[in-house]
Amino acid sequence: MTVTEVEIRSGAYYDSVILMQLQRSLVELPDILDAGVVMGTDANKDILAQSELMSPEVQAAVADDLVIVVKGKDKASAKSAIEKVDGLLTVRRRAGIDEEYRPKSLETAVKMLPEAQWILVSVPGRFAAGIARQSLNLGKHVFVFSDNVSLEDEIELKRIAAKKGLLVMGPDCGTAIINWVGLGFANKVRHGPIGIVAASGTGLQQVSSRIHQLGSGVTQAFGTGGRDLSEAVNAITARQGLDLLSRDPDTKVIVLISKPPSSVVADDLVQTVRQLGKPVVLYFIGYSTPHHVVDNVHFATTFDETAELAVQLSLSSSVLESASDLNIGRFAPGQRYLRGLFSGGTLAYEALLILQNYLPAVYSNVPLNKEFRVADSLASQAHTIIDLGEDEFTVGRLHPMMDNELRIRRLEMEANDPQVAVILLDVVLGYGAHPDPAGELTPVIARAKAKAKTAGRYLEVVAVVCGTDEDPQDLNAQMQQLKDAGVVVETSNESSVRYVGQLVRALDPEMSQIGTAPSEIVDLAVLKQPFAAINVGLESFKESLESQHAQVVQVDWRPPASGNEKLMAILERMKSK
Amino acid sequence: MTVTEVEIRSGAYYDSVILMQLQRSLVELPDILDAGVVMGTDANKDILAQSELMSPEVQAAVADDLVIVVKGKDKASAKSAIEKVDGLLTVRRRAGIDEEYRPKSLETAVKMLPEAQWILVSVPGRFAAGIARQSLNLGKHVFVFSDNVSLEDEIELKRIAAKKGLLVMGPDCGTAIINWVGLGFANKVRHGPIGIVAASGTGLQQVSSRIHQLGSGVTQAFGTGGRDLSEAVNAITARQGLDLLSRDPDTKVIVLISKPPSSVVADDLVQTVRQLGKPVVLYFIGYSTPHHVVDNVHFATTFDETAELAVQLSLSSSVLESASDLNIGRFAPGQRYLRGLFSGGTLAYEALLILQNYLPAVYSNVPLNKEFRVADSLASQAHTIIDLGEDEFTVGRLHPMMDNELRIRRLEMEANDPQVAVILLDVVLGYGAHPDPAGELTPVIARAKAKAKTAGRYLEVVAVVCGTDEDPQDLNAQMQQLKDAGVVVETSNESSVRYVGQLVRALDPEMSQIGTAPSEIVDLAVLKQPFAAINVGLESFKESLESQHAQVVQVDWRPPASGNEKLMAILERMKSK
Repeated sequence: MTVTEVEIRSGAYYDSVILMQLQRSLVELPDILDAGVVMGTDANKDILAQSELMSPEVQAAVADDLVIVVKGKDKASAKSAIEKVDGLLTVRRRAGIDEEYRPKSLETAVKMLPEAQWILVSVPGRFAAGIARQSLNLGKHVFVFSDNVSLEDEIELKRIAAKKGLLVMGPDCGTAIINWVGLGFANKVRHGPIGIVAASGTGLQQVSSRIHQLGSGVTQAFGTGGRDLSEAVNAITARQGLDLLSRDPDTKVIVLISKPPSSVVADDLVQTVRQLGKPVVLYFIGYSTPHHVVDNVHFATTFDETAELAVQLSLSSSVLESASDLNIGRFAPGQRYLRGLFSGGTLAYEALLILQNYLPAVYSNVPLNKEFRVADSLASQAHTIIDLGEDEFTVGRLHPMMDNELRIRRLEMEANDPQVAVILLDVVLGYGAHPDPAGELTPVIARAKAKAKTAGRYLEVVAVVCGTDEDPQDLNAQMQQLKDAGVVVETSNESSVRYVGQLVRALDPEMSQIGTAPSEIVDLAVLKQPFAAINVGLESFKESLESQHAQVVQVDWRPPASGNEKLMAILERMKSK
Repeated sequence: MTVTEVEIRSGAYYDSVILMQLQRSLVELPDILDAGVVMGTDANKDILAQSELMSPEVQAAVADDLVIVVKGKDKASAKSAIEKVDGLLTVRRRAGIDEEYRPKSLETAVKMLPEAQWILVSVPGRFAAGIARQSLNLGKHVFVFSDNVSLEDEIELKRIAAKKGLLVMGPDCGTAIINWVGLGFANKVRHGPIGIVAASGTGLQQVSSRIHQLGSGVTQAFGTGGRDLSEAVNAITARQGLDLLSRDPDTKVIVLISKPPSSVVADDLVQTVRQLGKPVVLYFIGYSTPHHVVDNVHFATTFDETAELAVQLSLSSSVLESASDLNIGRFAPGQRYLRGLFSGGTLAYEALLILQNYLPAVYSNVPLNKEFRVADSLASQAHTIIDLGEDEFTVGRLHPMMDNELRIRRLEMEANDPQVAVILLDVVLGYGAHPDPAGELTPVIARAKAKAKTAGRYLEVVAVVCGTDEDPQDLNAQMQQLKDAGVVVETSNESSVRYVGQLVRALDPEMSQIGTAPSEIVDLAVLKQPFAAINVGLESFKESLESQHAQVVQVDWRPPASGNEKLMAILERMKSK
């Protein structure tokens, strides 16, 4: 027969570490078989029941009650254990306190360590927002580990912070790495070229650890809290982090990770990261994209892939193509449209798909959706891709891979249009195809380019040549003919389409203005000064910071007004006036 | 002033090559400025109008009419050109005919070249199905280049073929490579380790050319026609092609490409290719997947990526894990369930996402959709993943990364369940986390494994350890402790989840029976004999085959019953009896 003894303490506040230690000490006492020390929430009571630590008194406890249960071999040992609780708590407390003076308020703490840029908050959720608000008023960045903070508080805090050029990581932010120092739960990761923004705690840990394991390292890693990419919060912190990393000269590659974000926010962030001017690896968990790569943005689908891509990109020396490399000054004002004249249906289709990443609307006789069907296949409108191999063109007529006549007529027509900037062609070689397509196309292209020049325009012609050096037409000879006529020649459909996509996007006055206006910019100095912080809450975080040689002051925090929330709210509002 | 002259010939049939040549010859005549020789479809009339070759007579022509238009400097030259049409046609015809005897029927052709396994059909669409049907009756594989064949005919032809163990590539099949010989439009591609199945003509050409450009090559490339992956056709030809390639010892990597397929067929084919036992690169244009890799299946999003992945995989020596490597014989009958006990929320989420590729249902307190929410977070059901870091578990209690107690209790409970085969854990190291999680978990795991063994079961425990060698806990030391207790240890969440996914899938009696029953198997000999064919239609395809040293007999084909379709249909049905 075992005996269970219970003690309930109403409205008592203890650090979770203290409670864990108390529970372990109780179990270690003679003749004690099991013990539970928890707040009296329903979930915790269920867990006690599962461990056979339930009683009517425990059942009656409420969330604010501290529940202490011990199961002893007999009544005497159980009772004796309960009697030792106060003693054990005192020992624990004394052991936890070192000899340093501990300020009771944030203000005092800030005076003691004025170089602290950060305040770390890990008190119970209902007190966290107040401390964060105070911290912002003191001009400090905030890391909120605490969960159970309301969405409204999160939004308000982040808006205040953004206006002041301050960061709020969290609430429910598990981890971050700032200037080599890990906050919350963080791995010791080599310093390196990769910067991370993550709305996912263990996601950040898994990716930063994998980066380290692969031999690379991290500049900075910002946690944002799991709700930052919701529509309500609209990624305020993530945007600040991305902006910082884009300006940080040490960061070569940027990683953005999130638990499933709002699709509106996700789509918007994809556009944002395309403007960062650095390679970006993006992993929105469970977010599918039609392409794995769009210019500087690489979409990953697992944490492993995220880390591998980031390391790979940080090692590659390729420089991103910027708008100036596209030399758009060559074109006359008014030149802006793309006209694609394809003989291969699937090449045309792939072109349309890839162009979705660059242009809002491309018309076609084989459109991705009906809305963009050209009114007349024989006349282009705005950006247009025509598949000349479609059935409508091939009744009683050879396929355009065999007979270029129709395409040549169309090419001349497009070239005469003063709004046309780029003509895109495919040239498909091989058995069965025309014996010398470049020979037929080249004189026409040369004439069209010369004519445009005379008219004060510049006509770019881009051709993807599909074939091999062993084809009857000889790939290299065909490419050389086209190059000699001033054609930009690629063997990859993807590369040629991306190039024209970038070009036409740069020529489009509307597209080049995408991107949200920045809030008050966060001073890059926060990433460059030695990390120093004030810790409010879990003692172990203070120890962890010290072990990383960061300066830290621990606030001797107690729930204000003895945990009375209403009174606390009043005090809080009075203070912040 | 220019003058246009027109001649309309009703019901006349000429090969498209002949028409193109006639048109070019007309333009070359003295004082002729332009000419058009086309069938009188609306599209063709629009094109003539655009080239200012329109007249009321042309406008009145119908699709079956051959329209001949010339534009001359004066009436005399235009008239004279029209008068030369018959002469030019005779010359063209004579020039096109060599001295060989040409059979008028397929039957005769087959007698002349009995080793021909293939019949190539490129006659106008309305005649193509009949010839294909005849070819199947003669026991031949068919390549149908012709377009404008009805969907009903396609389905019927492919069903007949599948029953006979024959292939129908097409209709509207642009390309294929069989035994080094290119059919239709095909590039000369090096022989190599990659086999292709494609419902996309230029897609096949682009990928095979890129493979060649990357220094690799192709075993066989099957075109299927663009509609093969529609729900109606249900990928009959693609499945036959995949089956052939999976049995072909020379094919190391399989590529499957399609224009946007039916999503039902696409999903089914993804399951099919997972059973092929070879690495597969799959590019369904515009088809987004939540993961880029699932076991042997690699999803590409452009032709370039498809080719690069295929070449990469063909060079890698890694062997696919088969069910036997999973050693499922260790488990007792009835053991089948996975229980995942995570401290990291996003790791749990990624696990659920990856497991979707292996199991139809995984329950959780953080499920991907509500349907799979566990009724009680404290009790598992079937396959279950629990995030112990969820708010419900952390009120007044330390996070499970700091305090393993709750997880240890749960682990013991799961291990006692005789239906449980695998327990999956994350062990997150780093600052702020427990100083020695492996030290706490290992004795419990060792006991649980021993207990299972005593009960005649085998308990697999898999742990992903997230951390670095510089973490306070030391990654390697933590991993070694776990390994010593018989735990399968990974540093990658993805790898550990894939492993348990494969394991539990193999243990699931229902999941291991996925895959459609094969139709009549196509004899692999078709890929091994020297290519020989009978060509019905475009003369240039015959020439192309000859230039590739393939044996070919050209049928001297004319529209039956002088092009009268109804009469032709009757004749056709009489023949096939």
